Parts: sequence; C-alpha cells; structure tokens
Amino acid sequence: MQVQTLKGFRDFLPFEARKRDYVISTLKKVFQLYGFEPLETPAIEYEEILTGKYGDEGDQLMYKFQDKGERKVALRYDQTVPLARVISQYQNDLPLPFKRYQMQNVWRAENTQKGRYREFLQCDADIVGSYSPTSDAEIISLAITSLKELGFKKFKILINDRMLFTNLPNLGINDEEVPMFVRAIDKLKKIGREKVIEELVRNGIDSQKASYTLDTLENEKPTQRINDILEALEKMKVDKKFIEFLPTLARGLNYYTGMIFEVEIDGYDTGSVAGGGRYDNLIGIFAGKDVPAVGFAFGFDRLMEAMEEFKLFPSELPSTKILVTNTNNYAPTIVNTLREEGINTELYLDEKDLEKQLKYADKKRIPYVLILNEDKFLLKDMTTGKQETLTLEQVVEKFK
Amino acid sequence: MQVQTLKGFRDFLPFEARKRDYVISTLKKVFQLYGFEPLETPAIEYEEILTGKYGDEGDQLMYKFQDKGERKVALRYDQTVPLARVISQYQNDLPLPFKRYQMQNVWRAENTQKGRYREFLQCDADIVGSYSPTSDAEIISLAITSLKELGFKKFKILINDRMLFTNLPNLGINDEEVPMFVRAIDKLKKIGREKVIEELVRNGIDSQKASYTLDTLENEKPTQRINDILEALEKMKVDKKFIEFLPTLARGLNYYTGMIFEVEIDGYDTGSVAGGGRYDNLIGIFAGKDVPAVGFAFGFDRLMEAMEEFKLFPSELPSTKILVTNTNNYAPTIVNTLREEGINTELYLDEKDLEKQLKYADKKRIPYVLILNEDKFLLKDMTTGKQETLTLEQVVEKFK
Repeated sequence: MQVQTLKGFRDFLPFEARKRDYVISTLKKVFQLYGFEPLETPAIEYEEILTGKYGDEGDQLMYKFQDKGERKVALRYDQTVPLARVISQYQNDLPLPFKRYQMQNVWRAENTQKGRYREFLQCDADIVGSYSPTSDAEIISLAITSLKELGFKKFKILINDRMLFTNLPNLGINDEEVPMFVRAIDKLKKIGREKVIEELVRNGIDSQKASYTLDTLENEKPTQRINDILEALEKMKVDKKFIEFLPTLARGLNYYTGMIFEVEIDGYDTGSVAGGGRYDNLIGIFAGKDVPAVGFAFGFDRLMEAMEEFKLFPSELPSTKILVTNTNNYAPTIVNTLREEGINTELYLDEKDLEKQLKYADKKRIPYVLILNEDKFLLKDMTTGKQETLTLEQVVEKFK
Repeated sequence: MQVQTLKGFRDFLPFEARKRDYVISTLKKVFQLYGFEPLETPAIEYEEILTGKYGDEGDQLMYKFQDKGERKVALRYDQTVPLARVISQYQNDLPLPFKRYQMQNVWRAENTQKGRYREFLQCDADIVGSYSPTSDAEIISLAITSLKELGFKKFKILINDRMLFTNLPNLGINDEEVPMFVRAIDKLKKIGREKVIEELVRNGIDSQKASYTLDTLENEKPTQRINDILEALEKMKVDKKFIEFLPTLARGLNYYTGMIFEVEIDGYDTGSVAGGGRYDNLIGIFAGKDVPAVGFAFGFDRLMEAMEEFKLFPSELPSTKILVTNTNNYAPTIVNTLREEGINTELYLDEKDLEKQLKYADKKRIPYVLILNEDKFLLKDMTTGKQETLTLEQVVEKFK
C-alpha cells in the first residue's frame, strides 16, 4: 500500500496550518467589520443542483458519484451555486440584502500539472439583493481593506464594466464572435497585445479589424455605472490610487453582468489574488426570480504565496512559547501555572535527558525552554542560546 | 428539481454559524495553550488508506467512489486514521511527541432516523509518541480546561482502564465472549443493570454468572496506571471533583488499549459530549512500528446542544453592532469612520424609506440603528426602542 495523499491534495502541517489560520481569521474580522455574516453549506449536494451552472468545463471537473441511496450527488465546486440554493431555500429567513461570507474547501478534478490543486479553500464575500452602485463599492472597499489589514501596501483594483462589451457588435464583432473575443482580450495583460491579435486572427477576425477594435476598446471611458461606483468609493474614503479603470478587463467567467474587477499586487506576478463583480442572473435561478448580486473571492493559495513573498506573516503566530523540561517532579504544576496565566506552554512528557528535550524544542521551533532544576529555574532563549535564572513570577512577567 | 440539501446534511445560517465559530475558536485557544498544534488533512484519501480500520460498520458507512483517474477513493471518516498516515508520511518532519489538534468535517452514511448527521465536525486533540501517564493526564486536563473555558460548571470525567477487562476470562467469560460482554456493560449507564444482564443472558451467559461478573467488575479498584494518571492530574492542580473512576466504562470503539474516559455534563442527558483514551496500536499501522498515542474528541453537535441548553453563548458574538440608514448622502463616509474605529457596521444599501430600513435591522437582530438626518444623528436601541441624539464622536465612544 502506498501511504500518501492523492495527487492534487495537500496536508497542512502545523507550520503551514498556523499561517492559513492567521489569514482566515484576519479576513473574517474584516468581513464582520463590514457587516458580512458567516454561512456554511454541505460538502455534498444533489448533482442536479450543481451541474449546468459552470459551463461544460465545470461539469467535467466536478466530483460526482452515487451515494448509498443511489442518489446522484456531487462535491461542492464553488460557493456561489450553494449560495443561490440557500437564497431560494430560506427565502423567509434571510431578509435581503443578505451579506454573507463563506470560507470552505471546494473540489475540482483539475489538471495538476498546471500547478493546480484538487482541493482548495475559497474565501467569498457577496451581497445578495441590491442593485445599488453602493453595494458594488462596498465589495471593492472590502477587498481593499482586507488587503491592507493583511499588510499589503502596493496593489491595484483593475475595474471594468462588462456592459462595454455590448458595444462590440457595433464595432464589427458578430454576436457569435463576442465570447471568443472576450476570452482573447482577457489575456491582454498576460500574453500582450501582439499575441491577442494573433489569437483573434486565428479565430477568423481580420487583423486590421482586430487591431481597430482593440484600440477602440482600450480608449473607452468609464460607463455611468462605473462612475457611480467610483463616486460611492470616494464617499467611503477609499484612496483613488488603488483603483484603475481597465476597459479590456474581461474575467473568464461568463456569469458576470456588470462591474467586474481583479486585484493585482505589485511585484507578485503569478496573477490576480482576488476578483469579483456583479452577477444579476445567477442567484435567482432556483428561486425563479431576478435576484441581483455582487461579490468577490480571494484566491487563497495565491494570497498565501504573496503573503510569503512579502514576508507579511507576523513573527509570532499563536504557537507554543515555552517548553518546560521534565527534570523536576513538579513540572506539571509549573506548567499549570503558566497556562493559567494564558501562556502557551508545552510540558515535555517523557523522561529523557535534558539534551534530548532541548533538541525537541529546537526542532519544533519553540522559542524558549524553561529548565527546572531543584533549586532554580533556567530560561533558555533557543535563538540566542542565552540563559537566565528567574523565579516563576519573573517568567510569568516576561511572557504576559 | 427539488432545491434542498441532502438528508443528513445541514446548512448553517449566520445565527448558527456564529455560535459554531465561537466554540471552535474557544477550543483552538485552549488547545494552543496546551501546546497542541493545528493539522489539516484532505477530505479525499485513497480508499485503501481508510478501509479496514473502523470495523465492518465503518467500512459500510464510508463514502467511497472512483475519481476521474479511476482511483478508488473515500471521504474522510474520522481524523485518527489520517493522523496515522501523516505520522508515517512525514516521519522526519514531525518530531515525537507530536501534539496536534484537528477540526474538520467527516462524512458517514449514517441512519438519519436516529438523529444522526452525515456530515459533522470533529474536534480532536491527540498526543502521539508518548507512553507516559503524564500524557494521559494532559489529555484529561485539556478536556476539563476546554469545558471550563466554554462555561460549563458541573461535569464529570468518567475514567477507566481497559486493562481491567483482561481479567474477564478469569471471571468465567470466555475470550470469544469478551467483546460481546464489553459491548453490553458499556450500556450500563444508559439502560440500567437489569437490561444489561438480560442482554448478557440473551447472549448465552448464565444469569448468575452475569450478575457476579458485573458485581466483581463494579467493585474493581483503579489500576496502577490509573493511579499514576490521577497523581499526574493532582500535580496539574486538576480538581478531584471532576474525576470519577468507573470500572464498567468500556467505550464502544475497539482500538483503545489502556485508559479510556468519557465526559458527562450534569443535567445534559443525551449522552457524553466528549471521550477518548489511549490507543497504542493504531497510529503505527502505516509506519510499521509501535507508536503510542492518547487523545480525545468532542462530539461537536452535542457540545453545541449542551451550550444552548445551559445558555453558555456570550450575548455578544462578533456580529453587526450598528446599521447606518441610507437617509443622508454621506452615509458611506460615516460608515467608514465607524469601521475605522473597529465597530462592526452595516450600511443600508438601497434607497428605501426609513421604516423598511428599521424592519431590516430588526429581522437581522442588529442591536442599534444610526439614523442620519441632515442636522443630527439619532441612535435607536432596537431592543428598548429608545432613541438618543448623539454626535459621531459620542457614537464611537459608546461602541468602542
């Protein structure tokens, strides 16, 4: 038997799990500050609830199976379709607008060679039930505050209105060509103008027309809606330097109906760490009526990667501060006192020599070891190697 | 299409999700205080990793399917077998003893008519790699501190040593009868002595022998091991009133090898809210060597139920404190100020009349509404209905 995780699945050992926890709890705090409320939905849903909402690729990548009752079921693929179900199922319990955040894993049978995972955390915040530009602005402001709270200094919200693309047929792009055209220009930032035009030509657009359409689009001014959103952001005291109108921004997903945005962090080139927009046709599918919505999601793995790159994790995450050696009969009593004072303390559990206990602390990156001798307490700083003789009260003082 | 959750699966709407979050973060804090570290493992594992470890019933209830690559996979059934895999897979990165906590969902195709769920949260804390009685005591002390931190006052740790049952053959219970006997006496608290003896008789034990064996067992004294654990608990300053030796305590699961315990809360009769013990034969199965372990888990749903019954949730969980009405052009600016002061604030997003906005706050149980008139700010207490006129500074003062 091969004792291993499945391809595309990950264990998070303590060192990594602690960092994830830090980012999750920071985001939760900010989401709550903005009046967003937590929601949890099941990992498994009826297959028919999930399929047909994410396009052919989504249906392909979805984990589907039959349960013991031979029901066709599927694993959560994102958190938006479950939100749509919730909105329909609890219509009377959830007054609109409903502002919810959700942070759960989703599963997709992705091609792992592209560096993608098959289980990953999504962090969504959405406002359901409001058409107002203020709600679009709230989502953008929330994204900005979240990034600032995590410690990012230089980043940009690239913003656009998908309504701009409704003008494409007037510029000579047929209705049927529009999705292909949008897919192509979405790659502008990544592959550059020349390659985008090549792709358009490959797809049957005359090269001059491609170039002209791209030029026209690039020179578009913000729509009235975008201006309304920018005005709301100004009232929210959001610094303009974070916002950039980008008329060629398209975002892959088809369900957006209005404002769209992506978050790019200066100096982190893997791609946008967050994105979102308005999607007024999706949430109502189960309720059988129009329900407007606007929201965004962090790409959690990219966010973690960018945090790592810019060294934004606090040096002290909640972890063990002191290892108390098992060299004195009353070690458990000492440990109890330290814990009662709220100091994260580990007691060495076995009877091994002091050297082994110090090695253990070192391997576990526990910053201090309290060595209990019969007559005195030695506190050893594992980083500097320095030792000092302290009373228990002095130890408590130092760590509180 | 039926828009609903699958039987045995639950949505957690904000009111419930907030309470769950509170309990989870309280437990995490205590676990960290004791030097336990977080671990996360994937929802999906190779089927062969999971099967054969939980007995026939476990294999029956497990969610199994084939993935796109036709690999036989299964959903996480508990957190102990994944821990065993982790211990084997990362032998060089995880110095022993390894003290980890894990709080993730597990999936079991349970009979929902018994009020069981098919997706539920497990909260585990285990110490891997130590035989010492101090480690058993640490786990018990951890359970007690967790319960106290959650606000429980009256509860008991029922403790026993499965070694006692090795004496059963000497009392006339055949080796083959032992598992059946243990299963029967495990129900003593629940169904009473008479019914247990009936069950033993039904299974071929002479009624006098059943009665005599039960008597003998009930009068057993704590083993040396239990006494060592009790002594360690005393050094940890754990109050004796929380501990009770119960020689007939068996616990259903077969993998325990020594000390076992269950937590009963006075006045909560559904059953024990936590349980655990020593299991020295399970963690090493993948590593191919002996790896001792001791741990426990909270039954999260029962814990939540007991918290509810004793009204132990704080009146103020992190949620929206103020709804600011959309009755003034500068509402977004006011909201921004309140949020910058760290006050959880919601801005009413649409242009509706004041009455509708108040109704919304009421439905969402937001305790205060800040009504922005041109010249003054009215703060309305939604519980008492009282209103007061305040400056923005006074509002900030009041909520900080």
